[in-house]
Amino acid sequence: MTVRRSPLLAEDRYARAAWSRLAEPADARALGLIEAHGAVAALAIALEGSTEVVETFRLRAERLDVERDLAVGYRMGARVVCPGDDDWPAGVDDLDAPPICLWVRGPADLSALARRSVAVVGARSCTSYGDLVAADFGAGIADRGFTVVSGAAFGIDAAAHRGALAVDGVTVAVLAGGVDRAYPIAHEHLLRRIVDTGAVISEVAPGSAPTRPRFLLRNRLIATITTGTVVVEAGLRSGSLNTARTAAEHNRPVGVVPGPVTSMVSAGCHQARRDGIAEIVTDVSEVIDLVGVIGDEAAPRRSAPEAVADGLDPVDAQALASVPIRKAASVENIAVAAGLLPRAVLSSLARLELLELVVREGDGWRKRAK
Amino acid sequence: MTVRRSPLLAEDRYARAAWSRLAEPADARALGLIEAHGAVAALAIALEGSTEVVETFRLRAERLDVERDLAVGYRMGARVVCPGDDDWPAGVDDLDAPPICLWVRGPADLSALARRSVAVVGARSCTSYGDLVAADFGAGIADRGFTVVSGAAFGIDAAAHRGALAVDGVTVAVLAGGVDRAYPIAHEHLLRRIVDTGAVISEVAPGSAPTRPRFLLRNRLIATITTGTVVVEAGLRSGSLNTARTAAEHNRPVGVVPGPVTSMVSAGCHQARRDGIAEIVTDVSEVIDLVGVIGDEAAPRRSAPEAVADGLDPVDAQALASVPIRKAASVENIAVAAGLLPRAVLSSLARLELLELVVREGDGWRKRAK
Repeated sequence: MTVRRSPLLAEDRYARAAWSRLAEPADARALGLIEAHGAVAALAIALEGSTEVVETFRLRAERLDVERDLAVGYRMGARVVCPGDDDWPAGVDDLDAPPICLWVRGPADLSALARRSVAVVGARSCTSYGDLVAADFGAGIADRGFTVVSGAAFGIDAAAHRGALAVDGVTVAVLAGGVDRAYPIAHEHLLRRIVDTGAVISEVAPGSAPTRPRFLLRNRLIATITTGTVVVEAGLRSGSLNTARTAAEHNRPVGVVPGPVTSMVSAGCHQARRDGIAEIVTDVSEVIDLVGVIGDEAAPRRSAPEAVADGLDPVDAQALASVPIRKAASVENIAVAAGLLPRAVLSSLARLELLELVVREGDGWRKRAK
Repeated sequence: MTVRRSPLLAEDRYARAAWSRLAEPADARALGLIEAHGAVAALAIALEGSTEVVETFRLRAERLDVERDLAVGYRMGARVVCPGDDDWPAGVDDLDAPPICLWVRGPADLSALARRSVAVVGARSCTSYGDLVAADFGAGIADRGFTVVSGAAFGIDAAAHRGALAVDGVTVAVLAGGVDRAYPIAHEHLLRRIVDTGAVISEVAPGSAPTRPRFLLRNRLIATITTGTVVVEAGLRSGSLNTARTAAEHNRPVGVVPGPVTSMVSAGCHQARRDGIAEIVTDVSEVIDLVGVIGDEAAPRRSAPEAVADGLDPVDAQALASVPIRKAASVENIAVAAGLLPRAVLSSLARLELLELVVREGDGWRKRAK
């Protein structure tokens, strides 16, 4: 076949769209050719060349129909976003093997991802605890103006997207297959909702199937398109840990949600912490703190509300601890119990009385009931 | 009163037993006097002196009856262990304010604590999850020949002691009150079992009440008497965090058990990790690894069992991912789907057939059902 040129697209964009069909994601040969010759000339070489290196592309090229892919994309409202475009998500350029182009459905501004976005990922077979936390985090992160990025899978991914949608936030799904294929099929409605206000993106051409290698390669996009990654639940072999490792390798902060040590789908989160690639995060403000966006406030350190007795000086606290609750005791007995001088106990008792912590009773003192 | 001298005890030991009644734990004045003059002369000063510094001791001294304390201790089978004794637990000497002596009931060798012991502590109002983990850790740690040290409180402490007892292990309870006082009273039977094979210890004289300041000071003993501390569950204001901080300040490794972020009694554990004073621990081998006793093996890094497909080289994995499950596909179609050369796919299929991952069907191939 020969290269036709769509009137709708500039040459480079057209060639990149073709490449998204010819080459698997992160294919080193394709990226090498494009780097050396540019996407257009590289495409010509792939289609007409005869060296071993391009034979594999030529096999696919025989079935190549860029116009059809573009037509499918067009029908779905998909655009082809390329490096250099205003809404190219800059984060993916950190990858050794960045995507050649991205097929994008939906209005979300992908350039904003590099500034304010969090990947929320995790196990397909999550627990109801993980589901709850993922939805809560998705909502809270989106509510703070961050885009929630995930993979639209069953379990944690879907809960995170739903959480963001529930607060009218922006959420982006990165798919392993084409943007026209609802995968899993049960999430067709969810994906349609994401397309309405956020974006569904993929680096493979419309119609492409979500194969296992593509899932793993998809994860590298989720990890680098965002400013940080949170794993809510993950087994020890979960693909989410692969996302977490990729994020860490590219200097993105990684958070993991702790869970019961008896839960197999928290084991991967705990291992990531123990391996030193992640810190634990227990609420949304800790997540925002983790991704450390400049200009935002740090999460307040969690602490319990103070009780009146906390503010006491050591002597008053010592005295108070030796005042009985049920039956009043003399100052001298309190002093002996506390190991303090009676006059020190007396002035402590006066202060404690003002704080309504003790009451006089006859000649003695007892603690006030709360 | 005057100082009588028990025929059962050397002078220094007698004086230290007296001091355990006169002074609160960690009392700087008492420790200063003993440091300057020795326990015996310091006791004489406290009993006869008239300066402000010792007046508080003199008040208690008026009621002092060392013989009675010793008699109570003797009846309970308690001994007075002092610095320099063979079974003095060396770890407490790391404290700025070490105990003056320890009242000890039970056969456990306290000198062994510095080599092989773990403090397992946590919330009184623990969840059934925490109770389960504490008992499991107590049993597993004791089973590996480590002494399990805790505070005999409700909740985590009791579960840890019980776990150790269940495997006939050695466990030590450090009390805030006298060793003759079962506190809480509901643990009278538990404490008796601990005394039979382990030890119940305290730095205050028999009969002393467990006041709030004494609980906090007791925690510093638990933290330093052991080679490491594990907090199973703790609220943000839990005394166990105080134990954890003290352990960390004295260069003992601290482990915290993660739990649901929705659980208030896991919040303190998570905060300790985030504050950088603790690492998370999810099973007993990680605890043993944490306390890092020389000569013991490190915990194996947790990993899932390998599947056959994990060992595949990338090309075989790529090919396998493109072999359909239900309906056989031709080598060429598999090659196109995988983005590989047909001859590469053919040799991959041969290897995958040997691994029983694919089967021939007519002219095509499909994945083998598992």
